[in-house]
Amino acid sequence: MSQQKGKFIVIEGLEGAGKSSAIALINDIISQYIGQSPVCTREPGGTPLAEKIRDLVKIADESDPLCDEAECLLIYAARSQLIANVIKPALSSGKWVLGDRHNLSSLAYQGGGRGLMPLVKAVSDACLHGFKPDLTLYLDIDPTLGLSRAASRGKLDRIEQQAIDFFERARKTYLKLAHEDDSIIVIDASQSMEQVHDDIRLQLQRLLPALMGEQ
Amino acid sequence: MSQQKGKFIVIEGLEGAGKSSAIALINDIISQYIGQSPVCTREPGGTPLAEKIRDLVKIADESDPLCDEAECLLIYAARSQLIANVIKPALSSGKWVLGDRHNLSSLAYQGGGRGLMPLVKAVSDACLHGFKPDLTLYLDIDPTLGLSRAASRGKLDRIEQQAIDFFERARKTYLKLAHEDDSIIVIDASQSMEQVHDDIRLQLQRLLPALMGEQ
Repeated sequence: MSQQKGKFIVIEGLEGAGKSSAIALINDIISQYIGQSPVCTREPGGTPLAEKIRDLVKIADESDPLCDEAECLLIYAARSQLIANVIKPALSSGKWVLGDRHNLSSLAYQGGGRGLMPLVKAVSDACLHGFKPDLTLYLDIDPTLGLSRAASRGKLDRIEQQAIDFFERARKTYLKLAHEDDSIIVIDASQSMEQVHDDIRLQLQRLLPALMGEQ
Repeated sequence: MSQQKGKFIVIEGLEGAGKSSAIALINDIISQYIGQSPVCTREPGGTPLAEKIRDLVKIADESDPLCDEAECLLIYAARSQLIANVIKPALSSGKWVLGDRHNLSSLAYQGGGRGLMPLVKAVSDACLHGFKPDLTLYLDIDPTLGLSRAASRGKLDRIEQQAIDFFERARKTYLKLAHEDDSIIVIDASQSMEQVHDDIRLQLQRLLPALMGEQ
């Protein structure tokens, strides 16, 4: 049982899975449930320094293309900074944290998508020391559908411009890891937004009492 | 025996050990020996992106202090980028590379100094896949003497401002690793610059023919 006072809930999913609207919904539900807004984070990013790292990862530089290993290490640098300076202090002070992506994204994108699982696992193990979310909601979507939704929002960033098979490998890894870990809940994000939100509400109604009981 | 066409020579040492003047000397010696200037790199840095990472490591931000794990991962991100986009292409094309610091600095500073050896070794193994310099000259100096020399040059950066015991642990690690690896040569950098440079000349006269023979 966790020694933390607050709880760490993360939303995960491919581009266009509907993370942003799901986060707004979960924020409302948690705020009502515990009577206090959670601290919201995004990854990579979420601290002044981690946001600078995010820019290095997201913005392509044709003169000095980011190699896959550097991408992976930059993301973990940003994550270490966010955990040390935002997430752990918030949890220790009794606040809940709602994360837009966390370690599962690296396992899926850099581990599955880039084929760097040995590096991802080595860094993850050596950096996080077992720290993980109390609950992850993974919005599962076929990458073709997700990317068409993401493209309709505007210009795609460096990661979003990867080929479709990159996202197919990432999705496969998401599903495999969700299958192996009871704290990761899969939500079918190919449904309408209303249906997705109904599923999220139902899951949280079912799971929040147990999380509260662990406090 | 190496399959590389060029050779990778690195100079290492604590602050104030005299790396800069040694690099100028080694650059001259190599240029005369092979008839071509080596590609000079510095770490962290050496590519446009890696130089941005260097700034994140070197410049303290009081509002978001860099945690030790993030420091380590940023340095390896910069190193991966430098190896992929500068060092390996140069070596493959037959050029020699002269590096101001490389992986031994991370083992000494982040591994020994910060006490993060498990993380450093995990990342180093998973990132570098055995890639290492053909020859490293380590300028050994007592940190008290080195830092007094460095301070006389001007304002110390975030790393240079660490407490003396940080540098003592780093030095101890440098010496231990040099003892275990024949490709790391220890030069007594507490001597006068003339004596240090004489030692470097002697070592290179002894070692360069063997390195050339491996080409």
